[in-house]
Amino acid sequence: MANHLYEKGLEIRKVVIGEEFVEKAIKNANDFNQPLQELVTEYCWGKIWAREGLSMKTRSMLNLAMLTALNRPDEMKIHVRGALTNGVTKEEIKEIYLQTAIYCGLPAAIDSFKLAQQVFDELEVDE
Amino acid sequence: MANHLYEKGLEIRKVVIGEEFVEKAIKNANDFNQPLQELVTEYCWGKIWAREGLSMKTRSMLNLAMLTALNRPDEMKIHVRGALTNGVTKEEIKEIYLQTAIYCGLPAAIDSFKLAQQVFDELEVDE
Amino acid sequence: MANHLYEKGLEIRKVVIGEEFVEKAIKNANDFNQPLQELVTEYCWGKIWAREGLSMKTRSMLNLAMLTALNRPDEMKIHVRGALTNGVTKEEIKEIYLQTAIYCGLPAAIDSFKLAQQVFDELEVDE
Amino acid sequence: MANHLYEKGLEIRKVVIGEEFVEKAIKNANDFNQPLQELVTEYCWGKIWAREGLSMKTRSMLNLAMLTALNRPDEMKIHVRGALTNGVTKEEIKEIYLQTAIYCGLPAAIDSFKLAQQVFDELEVDE
Amino acid sequence: MANHLYEKGLEIRKVVIGEEFVEKAIKNANDFNQPLQELVTEYCWGKIWAREGLSMKTRSMLNLAMLTALNRPDEMKIHVRGALTNGVTKEEIKEIYLQTAIYCGLPAAIDSFKLAQQVFDELEVDE
Amino acid sequence: MANHLYEKGLEIRKVVIGEEFVEKAIKNANDFNQPLQELVTEYCWGKIWAREGLSMKTRSMLNLAMLTALNRPDEMKIHVRGALTNGVTKEEIKEIYLQTAIYCGLPAAIDSFKLAQQVFDELEVDE
Repeated sequence: MANHLYEKGLEIRKVVIGEEFVEKAIKNANDFNQPLQELVTEYCWGKIWAREGLSMKTRSMLNLAMLTALNRPDEMKIHVRGALTNGVTKEEIKEIYLQTAIYCGLPAAIDSFKLAQQVFDELEVDE
Repeated sequence: MANHLYEKGLEIRKVVIGEEFVEKAIKNANDFNQPLQELVTEYCWGKIWAREGLSMKTRSMLNLAMLTALNRPDEMKIHVRGALTNGVTKEEIKEIYLQTAIYCGLPAAIDSFKLAQQVFDELEVDE
Repeated sequence: MANHLYEKGLEIRKVVIGEEFVEKAIKNANDFNQPLQELVTEYCWGKIWAREGLSMKTRSMLNLAMLTALNRPDEMKIHVRGALTNGVTKEEIKEIYLQTAIYCGLPAAIDSFKLAQQVFDELEVDE
Repeated sequence: MANHLYEKGLEIRKVVIGEEFVEKAIKNANDFNQPLQELVTEYCWGKIWAREGLSMKTRSMLNLAMLTALNRPDEMKIHVRGALTNGVTKEEIKEIYLQTAIYCGLPAAIDSFKLAQQVFDELEVDE
Repeated sequence: MANHLYEKGLEIRKVVIGEEFVEKAIKNANDFNQPLQELVTEYCWGKIWAREGLSMKTRSMLNLAMLTALNRPDEMKIHVRGALTNGVTKEEIKEIYLQTAIYCGLPAAIDSFKLAQQVFDELEVDE
Repeated sequence: MANHLYEKGLEIRKVVIGEEFVEKAIKNANDFNQPLQELVTEYCWGKIWAREGLSMKTRSMLNLAMLTALNRPDEMKIHVRGALTNGVTKEEIKEIYLQTAIYCGLPAAIDSFKLAQQVFDELEVDE
């Protein structure tokens, strides 16, 4: 398991998503979901997020837009936290979601605003 | 029709999408699609794209990601052109679409790569 | 095959979609798609469209909205024709699609406006 | 903020969604989601729902169909209430959802039936 | 109600989804959702699942893949149980979901892994 | 580039999708889409299709179901060819698509039937 892609991915994943969250995901991995943990760590984080062509901040912004379209609340909350870590401001999250209202429709944007608010409340993020 | 929001939207829309394209869309508007032209110009361009919280370049990047998830080829081609106009490089478009491969799935990313290539060919965009 | 549901469905399907279109679909059916033709005729037309709780006009309107969300151009064009047959006016189609712009996003609505315009042009529908 | 579109939208929104719900949404608005509240009120309600080409009842019916396709449970529950207010009967909601089963698939329809039942239970709606 | 399609569908539905679950769904049916229960039993189970061209196990596998793409958590949990009943192993469910990661995107696959784990925990399924 | 995963993926990809098709895709790769070609070959084919837990035939069947839900015509046609190569019969493709009619809705299934028929016509596949 301990290959280069996995190691690099693990490092970036911890920076963006949080060491505690990632440690827990790995510790809780069982025979059933272990290959998913590897796939996520290697491909998503080691292969794509590790690429240099876009800043981590931009990648986080893209994810907030995509996850609104994809309708995946759990991942959205994880990536709102990641976005804050990567320097996306609350103001910018607002702008991203307003733009999703136009392209993905209002119900999608409304859901994203609610999910982000939950994360802000959990993290006690002020303006 | 000639309200402030419409005028502001029209100006931005022409800058991003191209004067020729927009003039044609407006000239071809008929009773059926005229209110759509207004909604697009006012709501999408005058209300959202006109906001200051994100750069035009960032807004274009978000659109390339969202339109991949939303599966709308015609709009994608229009916004690939717009992205180039707004300073998104071919390298950056590549990075955005690689990231969509992870989150939206490979078939979505493959379609977007093909559509962008068509635009590059039409515009004779080199590296 | 010649059961009651199929017969009832066939009749309604011909009224809404057009006798010529349906005859052709049935004549062109082969071993591969024959069970689909039956499912469509019985389940969609004989079972649901035959129900009395909504007018045919309302059912057509719902379809224009749903097919915008579902992103299925071929079916949309068929159901724009069906909607006209069922008494949905060009004005009402415009209103339906404007409403989809809000809920499904602008790219979805733009595509539907284009598809309906194609049908109007093919049928030489004036205001 | 107090422009014509916003005022008109606010009025219609209160009629359809309920005064209590809307007052609460506006009171709870903060710097983060305030522009969303405005966008919803002005564009969705002031611009589209205010149009005369379709009855409020028909607009509600379209929403029940679209939101089934779009898979947005929170908005669905709000619009089931709105539909009842706009005169859509429980019988008609049943018919709309049965039609979504055909076009959006059974899992989508099953979810909508469950969500509407929750609203009926909350509102103690009988036949 | 007691037609051949319904009877055949009811039998298969009980085998796959579980007698207790189906009895409860039918007992809880009211005027509102009764026609949905019939549609599900007759068309989904009596018409399609009853066909001989694919094994029940293969049909269950297809559902796990489709429901991942369709993003319907309640139906997914029901069909994870059904898949186990139809002989799909935990190992095979893992493989199916890993494949969805590629085609539907990682967030879709992550959600499915979580939902299946919940079912395994509820049923105390070991390796 | 010439790593183990890429080599293994390339081999499987050629078997399933066809040597000619894959050679052409690789020869036509340019700076823009080269990393996509690698991602597809390594991640999709070398990492997932290479896994032993499911037969190639089953993987092809899952793809036909998923791609119906995902609404990606180009990929569908490629994977209908791949399915035939992997031993999925025309009869089984019919059964898979009939099942998608129930879960993804009729318009999705109708599109898939049409796309597969195009492939059969191109390949002159008889019963």
